[in-house]
Amino acid sequence: MNTNYYAVIMAGGVGSRFWPVSTQEFPKQFHDMLGTGQSLIQRTFDRINQLVSSKNILIATNERYRNLVLEQLPKTTEKQLLLEPAMRNTAPCILYAALKIYNQNPEAVMLVAPSDHWIDDEKEFINNIQTSYEACQSNDILMTLGIQPNSPNTGYGYIEFAKEESQIKKVKNFTEKPNLETAKQFLASGNYLWNAGIFVWSAKSIIAAFKQYLPDMVAILDDGNAVYNTDFEDDFIKSNYASCENISIDFGIMEPAKNVHVLPVDFGWNDLGTWGSLYNKLEKDKDNNAVVAAETIFRDAQGNMVKTQSGKHVVIQGLNNFIVVEKEDVILICPQKDEQDIKQITAQVKDTFGDSFV
Amino acid sequence: MNTNYYAVIMAGGVGSRFWPVSTQEFPKQFHDMLGTGQSLIQRTFDRINQLVSSKNILIATNERYRNLVLEQLPKTTEKQLLLEPAMRNTAPCILYAALKIYNQNPEAVMLVAPSDHWIDDEKEFINNIQTSYEACQSNDILMTLGIQPNSPNTGYGYIEFAKEESQIKKVKNFTEKPNLETAKQFLASGNYLWNAGIFVWSAKSIIAAFKQYLPDMVAILDDGNAVYNTDFEDDFIKSNYASCENISIDFGIMEPAKNVHVLPVDFGWNDLGTWGSLYNKLEKDKDNNAVVAAETIFRDAQGNMVKTQSGKHVVIQGLNNFIVVEKEDVILICPQKDEQDIKQITAQVKDTFGDSFV
Repeated sequence: MNTNYYAVIMAGGVGSRFWPVSTQEFPKQFHDMLGTGQSLIQRTFDRINQLVSSKNILIATNERYRNLVLEQLPKTTEKQLLLEPAMRNTAPCILYAALKIYNQNPEAVMLVAPSDHWIDDEKEFINNIQTSYEACQSNDILMTLGIQPNSPNTGYGYIEFAKEESQIKKVKNFTEKPNLETAKQFLASGNYLWNAGIFVWSAKSIIAAFKQYLPDMVAILDDGNAVYNTDFEDDFIKSNYASCENISIDFGIMEPAKNVHVLPVDFGWNDLGTWGSLYNKLEKDKDNNAVVAAETIFRDAQGNMVKTQSGKHVVIQGLNNFIVVEKEDVILICPQKDEQDIKQITAQVKDTFGDSFV
Repeated sequence: MNTNYYAVIMAGGVGSRFWPVSTQEFPKQFHDMLGTGQSLIQRTFDRINQLVSSKNILIATNERYRNLVLEQLPKTTEKQLLLEPAMRNTAPCILYAALKIYNQNPEAVMLVAPSDHWIDDEKEFINNIQTSYEACQSNDILMTLGIQPNSPNTGYGYIEFAKEESQIKKVKNFTEKPNLETAKQFLASGNYLWNAGIFVWSAKSIIAAFKQYLPDMVAILDDGNAVYNTDFEDDFIKSNYASCENISIDFGIMEPAKNVHVLPVDFGWNDLGTWGSLYNKLEKDKDNNAVVAAETIFRDAQGNMVKTQSGKHVVIQGLNNFIVVEKEDVILICPQKDEQDIKQITAQVKDTFGDSFV
């Protein structure tokens, strides 16, 4: 494997729309959401590990998930963990990773990828990342992967690219979640892609971009350049990380930067953002019921999504298009169309049942 | 307490319409269906024990529930158990009880009562039983308690009584579950009562009735008269009981007998025969949801009946008039209107999940 290839798996989120399975204590990425026998982060690690040496794969996560990561990813050592002492969105974490990687290898090119997404065609994914690494090794560009959209989804950000012949295209614009009318126009125009939060760049290029667009953050974290990959790194991060601005890489770097390029990809991507997106991803029976880790009997029941802790026996009669989820001491029964209410539900759960339930 | 007062609690049934809570291994009467802190049989025993000495209360049940009875009713000894080696409906079991009681005390009057019904007004119940005992002590009559009906329920048997001034009335007729039209006529006529399966008679009178209407059964079980209340009783019953005709006390004795009388009663009776009847019995919240042993959040959800193993946390949104029941490794979600389908459901569960689930 190319020793210049690095990756950062972003694993600090909670995935609160997957309550009750995903909780603060045990978020989505650590669950086997699709019943494949691997958690999402394990699947992500193995996918990337096809191209990147396991010791070059870093995991960015919250301090509280340290043990979960080490248990689930036995090829990972403490040195590969980027433990965020505070939630500061993606920019500070990516700068921290870039500085740490640059300190190890100034020639490094790095992939940044979420830990909790689903990819159907892993071979195609690897090909796309390889293409991106090669482009970033020889060019001072910031790359993002753009997913070929197949519906006017209003839950995603969109990337507008310049119409040009080359495989990798210059980005003209980022648009946050549009309304339906706008999304339809984007889809019709043919030069918009979904922003999946998958980035590739050289450590050198992204650090240069931070110096230009978020210089205060560089001042905070670069001060520690001498400490990266030493015994002092943890203390340095603990003392300084929380001073960084709370800002996403999209707002902080990708939108203002002039050298952003996109590779259109089509490897069967699903962000597993909601129960509905998980339902879409799963195999259905003849009545369009999808089941994870449960034994089921459906009677006059269609379009339901059922997930239990492990192998629970569920009998459902006369119910259509519902989410039925059981986990330890919680059961959720909710119409699929109301999946966006789950944030409200978890707020009510916290008030009524207590903090430990969310 | 009057030492001539005896009682037989009938506890051999399975209550399959209360699946998944009630199963062959652990039937309804051994569960705390209403969340009162006592199982139904415990409640029944304590109610009767207000009038009948605990050593005079016999429990008729299947051999397999022997340990459950002894655990749940610590005042009961082995000698008080009538263990049916085979399911033979109520007549053989009541004859067995009557012979055993007569052997102990030829002056005995005995109450026969189900173990799994609910009674609101226990004081009124005790008064009614006292009245019945007194009537049966001085008269050769077979008594049944008739529940004042408050709806044309087609799930119960009806008792027609002769219009007469006395408190205890002669029975003219028994009618099994009528159709709705007939049930409405019964209700309008004012001389029909529900048959609750609660009987009172002297041991002497019921044995006489068996000799007249089921002489073959007496021949089988009376042969053992010398063995009742001895160490040989169990072996005798094991060898002979299964030879008895499989017939109910209603068909075998009450319908043909000429000396049947009824005491109309109104002590707030519920046979807890279905999830719907349990729902009717329970307190409801402002949205008519009823909950047993669960912590719940209802959002836009009305008229539901929720029961969990113990204290499970259940969140229900957008669901109306359903039964949601969780027990160990089973969840049932079914419309209340389909509660009669539960027998079909359990058949399917047995086929699909296996015998151990029903």
